[in-house]
Amino acid sequence: MNNSVNSHFKRLSRRQLLQWGMAGLGIGGSSLLLRHFTSQLLSTVKIPPVEIKDTYPLQNPFNPMTILREFEYGEIKQEKGKVIREFNVVANSSLLQLNSAISFVSWNLNNRVPGPTFRAKEGERVRIIFNNEDGHSHSLHFHGIHPAEMDGVKPVRHGKNTVYEFEAKPFGVHLYHCHIAPVTRHISKGLYGMFIVDPPQPRPPADEMIMVMGGYDINNDRNNELYAFNGIPNYYRDRPISIYKNQLIRLYILNMIEFDPVSTFHIHANMFKVYRTGRSLTPDEETDMITMGTAERHILEFSYSYPGQYMFHPHQDIMAEYGCLGKFNVVSS
Amino acid sequence: MNNSVNSHFKRLSRRQLLQWGMAGLGIGGSSLLLRHFTSQLLSTVKIPPVEIKDTYPLQNPFNPMTILREFEYGEIKQEKGKVIREFNVVANSSLLQLNSAISFVSWNLNNRVPGPTFRAKEGERVRIIFNNEDGHSHSLHFHGIHPAEMDGVKPVRHGKNTVYEFEAKPFGVHLYHCHIAPVTRHISKGLYGMFIVDPPQPRPPADEMIMVMGGYDINNDRNNELYAFNGIPNYYRDRPISIYKNQLIRLYILNMIEFDPVSTFHIHANMFKVYRTGRSLTPDEETDMITMGTAERHILEFSYSYPGQYMFHPHQDIMAEYGCLGKFNVVSS
Amino acid sequence: MNNSVNSHFKRLSRRQLLQWGMAGLGIGGSSLLLRHFTSQLLSTVKIPPVEIKDTYPLQNPFNPMTILREFEYGEIKQEKGKVIREFNVVANSSLLQLNSAISFVSWNLNNRVPGPTFRAKEGERVRIIFNNEDGHSHSLHFHGIHPAEMDGVKPVRHGKNTVYEFEAKPFGVHLYHCHIAPVTRHISKGLYGMFIVDPPQPRPPADEMIMVMGGYDINNDRNNELYAFNGIPNYYRDRPISIYKNQLIRLYILNMIEFDPVSTFHIHANMFKVYRTGRSLTPDEETDMITMGTAERHILEFSYSYPGQYMFHPHQDIMAEYGCLGKFNVVSS
Repeated sequence: MNNSVNSHFKRLSRRQLLQWGMAGLGIGGSSLLLRHFTSQLLSTVKIPPVEIKDTYPLQNPFNPMTILREFEYGEIKQEKGKVIREFNVVANSSLLQLNSAISFVSWNLNNRVPGPTFRAKEGERVRIIFNNEDGHSHSLHFHGIHPAEMDGVKPVRHGKNTVYEFEAKPFGVHLYHCHIAPVTRHISKGLYGMFIVDPPQPRPPADEMIMVMGGYDINNDRNNELYAFNGIPNYYRDRPISIYKNQLIRLYILNMIEFDPVSTFHIHANMFKVYRTGRSLTPDEETDMITMGTAERHILEFSYSYPGQYMFHPHQDIMAEYGCLGKFNVVSS
Repeated sequence: MNNSVNSHFKRLSRRQLLQWGMAGLGIGGSSLLLRHFTSQLLSTVKIPPVEIKDTYPLQNPFNPMTILREFEYGEIKQEKGKVIREFNVVANSSLLQLNSAISFVSWNLNNRVPGPTFRAKEGERVRIIFNNEDGHSHSLHFHGIHPAEMDGVKPVRHGKNTVYEFEAKPFGVHLYHCHIAPVTRHISKGLYGMFIVDPPQPRPPADEMIMVMGGYDINNDRNNELYAFNGIPNYYRDRPISIYKNQLIRLYILNMIEFDPVSTFHIHANMFKVYRTGRSLTPDEETDMITMGTAERHILEFSYSYPGQYMFHPHQDIMAEYGCLGKFNVVSS
Repeated sequence: MNNSVNSHFKRLSRRQLLQWGMAGLGIGGSSLLLRHFTSQLLSTVKIPPVEIKDTYPLQNPFNPMTILREFEYGEIKQEKGKVIREFNVVANSSLLQLNSAISFVSWNLNNRVPGPTFRAKEGERVRIIFNNEDGHSHSLHFHGIHPAEMDGVKPVRHGKNTVYEFEAKPFGVHLYHCHIAPVTRHISKGLYGMFIVDPPQPRPPADEMIMVMGGYDINNDRNNELYAFNGIPNYYRDRPISIYKNQLIRLYILNMIEFDPVSTFHIHANMFKVYRTGRSLTPDEETDMITMGTAERHILEFSYSYPGQYMFHPHQDIMAEYGCLGKFNVVSS
């Protein structure tokens, strides 16, 4: 596989063009997006080639390696002179194979846990068309600023749909989750995901990835027996995430673990800059340990100077021992 | 009820004058207070009319809707040229009706959980005359800076009283609680409250309110079975707090939940600015999720731009499910 | 005992000279160290005389009062023109007497819990020669920045040794601990300690001390039954730490409690400035309550203006009730 910078961006550019909805947008409307996009193209972000078609021993409806760097930009629509970024999603149940012995019926969005990572720019109008094909009532409650009617606390019954529409604001890392009672159950079953609102002036180019920390209450005792980054316990321990040496990594991290009061996050042999809730363009602190309550989320930035393998995990080591453990594989460019 | 700005402030002004102890103070001594007070009068803080005489199904010795915006300014005394802000309080036991099935014998101050919200300005001398009429020994331990003799770790026996006197400093949100062993028990039974020290130059005008998060260990198993904002589980869920659209809200929040390692706090559909421990006049961060250990407290500022009802609760959703859940009712002015 | 400022520094200076490895270093190499050292000598740091030879009822292989202010500076070596700060340490098992009824077999470094407080300056090369004389495999995993080979996640078997060598960076408060699975067990048994990296320009003179918070799982139920500052439950409650009035205290604090999701830390009747992870020379906030996940650590600075005794403890009061409780004894200079 040719993984030179140029070919990477050639591939990326076609995909990104589609993601940012360049087709169907007039020149005027797309100029801002294009400017952002151009700066990305001209940058020197380098991402090692990713083998998606691997043969991980567990069969699951999604691949955590894909989820890691996949952002949903929706479809651009123009209505009465307004530009709308439209997302069409489906709630359903899926069987997850968490390890060789344990399966779990998840309630989720688009057959994945976490659900899709919605992404928009601050000030854009977003529309989420929510179809509930699951047997239970669900909803999508977004964090961020929006009117009461769009707050997603009303149940959407099986076979029904609803539309959430609001201005994406403020920029930062947000989230969405089902808000039907008991909320602990609807969240711990898997109905949650990340919602990234980019600032008007984009952040510097980086190898961007998301990690959502989740817990699985296998026996319904309101305690978690397993934990995972991006849905499948120990996936990134067995399939380390390749990144390039000296490449800026921008990690969007979200704690969605119910029943445990907090989670922590630590990377080995390095420090990261913390942008709390993603609400700032300058870092709030530098550390290698953050403590996050459920629904807390931050942007972490770092780069590795030495090649090799490095663990990341909560430093409540019991969570790491039960599945919330991964590795970066730092390769020389 | 006439709730125009002017009539509101006419009402407020008489009450505030008494609270700030204008009577009995010479012109010289009161000029600073007056200046602060005038700036409040001239401001445009708007608070919807509050129906205090409601018929909430539970009978309790206090009303969480009153506690919400009630600040105890004490009585101004002058002794040997010094101005002293004097508070006279009583510890006792009261039966709380937490829900239709569960009653709880609380140990408390002034027949309320949380106890009174003491409020003073940085640098003022405060005197708390503590009368213990409860059957157990108790004390009042204040956070903030003070001499060892005023630290409130010595028991005051039934029928006795003691005087705590110190300079109110530094400005910020502080607290007090009983410090008699076992402290977990004396706190979880309800003997705690907030202690606000205002900065020399007052904060901008706002609709100010307090929320103290507490837990109830009904069966003495060192776990909480119920939770509450300002004493009574689910009160503000059943009686939403009316606030005006676009009105700056200043929320003084304190976590006094024992047995749980932390609590979080989230408001729906909005973000808040955080002034950690109230020790700054500029915000430390903006988010919609904070994580607080027991005795942590902060100032949160926000305003709602859209009318409607919005939940607030810890995002450890299990606490919300067991009583720590409320709503704002945002009304157009 | 003569505890005048001058005699204190005369004593300190000889000891510090050895600690900083002045002997054996050429003038050129030591000039920076000397400059730092001189500024310390000229300062007015005052530490009350410490009675180390006390007769605490419990017999233990170490004394928490010694650990409190003891920093290991290693031995300075020069190899091929490079200066190396070399530490030689031994892992072993030791019986701890936690209280009059409970003994505990700890796994530790240098017969103490926490292990030695390694200290170096940013940019120095440090070499830790790790000898494992314990019956189990162990390792030393350091926080901070270093290559993957020096990450200390590989087991060192009984009777074997290994060398960890890397540049000390970045400045801040770091830690080390055994990283052999199950990590919860290897940490909770006591194999951890602090690693301080001083900034190039030293922090202002202060009475510096360390506190490492640990938990003891006596009955292997993955819950802690006892807690301690610097190894022995309630030691500083029974032997308060003497400090001088108005003397700046710099407290390096580290939470190494496993099984509990977080710990908090509170000092009575005072506020402290927080330098998060020690990564800044200006404080991040001022409070009297911090919440720390396992492996979180900070620098706290404060001084007491009034003489007397003041408690410090986590404000999860249950931890304080089970051993994590101490006192400062503030004496007039």
